[in-house]
Amino acid sequence: MMKLYNFFRSGTSHRLRIALNLKGLDYDYVAVDLRRDEHLGEAFRALNPQGLVPALVDGEQVLIQSPAIVEWLEERHPAPPLLPADAAGRARVRALAALIGCDIHPLNNRRVLEYLRHTLGHDEAAVAAWCRTWIAAGFAALEALLAADPARGDFCHGGSPTLADVYLVPQVESARRFGVDLAPYPNIVAVDAACAALPAFARAAPAVQPDAA
Amino acid sequence: MMKLYNFFRSGTSHRLRIALNLKGLDYDYVAVDLRRDEHLGEAFRALNPQGLVPALVDGEQVLIQSPAIVEWLEERHPAPPLLPADAAGRARVRALAALIGCDIHPLNNRRVLEYLRHTLGHDEAAVAAWCRTWIAAGFAALEALLAADPARGDFCHGGSPTLADVYLVPQVESARRFGVDLAPYPNIVAVDAACAALPAFARAAPAVQPDAA
Repeated sequence: MMKLYNFFRSGTSHRLRIALNLKGLDYDYVAVDLRRDEHLGEAFRALNPQGLVPALVDGEQVLIQSPAIVEWLEERHPAPPLLPADAAGRARVRALAALIGCDIHPLNNRRVLEYLRHTLGHDEAAVAAWCRTWIAAGFAALEALLAADPARGDFCHGGSPTLADVYLVPQVESARRFGVDLAPYPNIVAVDAACAALPAFARAAPAVQPDAA
Repeated sequence: MMKLYNFFRSGTSHRLRIALNLKGLDYDYVAVDLRRDEHLGEAFRALNPQGLVPALVDGEQVLIQSPAIVEWLEERHPAPPLLPADAAGRARVRALAALIGCDIHPLNNRRVLEYLRHTLGHDEAAVAAWCRTWIAAGFAALEALLAADPARGDFCHGGSPTLADVYLVPQVESARRFGVDLAPYPNIVAVDAACAALPAFARAAPAVQPDAA
């Protein structure tokens, strides 16, 4: 069985739990406690020299970086698909995912917030404002892109979950944690609600993981 | 012919110029001057609501987000391939690319540095230290991953350029601009030199673009 090295509150870990659940793949949950710096310890670094969760061990393969891992899962376990059948659709879904994965999430990562606090000396109010700034900028673009899609169903792209939803739901979870007002983003909120109604998403939520505080 | 909306010094634009050149695809160079905030103007936002370069117009398709665009190019123009033929190789190349595209580049993006300067009031020394911190963390991991690969040739993965090199070269360019000491990363420096010797990379360099300062 696959082993997922992850942390309940990590957004990139959350993505993989959703993708694995959507594909109906069982996995062993291996908790890496970021609060105790386990990701920086020798045992985990032997698996991933970068010292970041998640990592997925699939047979002999050690896989790192959630964008690469979701593509691996899509290639190895194509059903149900998380990418559309047409090239234009795939480009759109990957763009929505990358908007979140490159332009929102990395800026609010734990190590970045620690740098703002400890190296640059900012207080929690400034850190929260920082997070809200990048989430709001990304969500405004995402909301415009969702609103402009005449073929959109209940999810980010069409009528079933794709990689874009795999990225969106953890980012909405994080936005709520940072106190972002979601009222300006009705399409995002609607997609998040449609996802939450599916067991694959519900079972992946941070709050119901074994290492949840 | 395809139209590439881009800016000479943007790392994500630089990626696409390399990928297009490696695939032997001609394109019209459309300069979007970030110094004059053209990316935030109505004309460009009509193309990309996110207001970030690059965007690629390919026939009727408007493509945004460089990670999605390189996959589009790979699907539509498979020769020469920028991803390995085996799934494990693809996962590795995509992981190296994502390490740069998610964990290094977004933190040193123009809008982020402007926030550090103008909203948080940091001086250029603090901004440069910020950039060097994230480049050094990412390059240390990347160097370890390259060094640990027994099958590696002159490039990030094997003996010909892949998506990983498409991402690496612009990041090395940016590291040099921020004064990062590259001595601790001999494998990265060697890959960068191997790439620089190829016309596809040389022609994509910021300094030789029509809008270069």
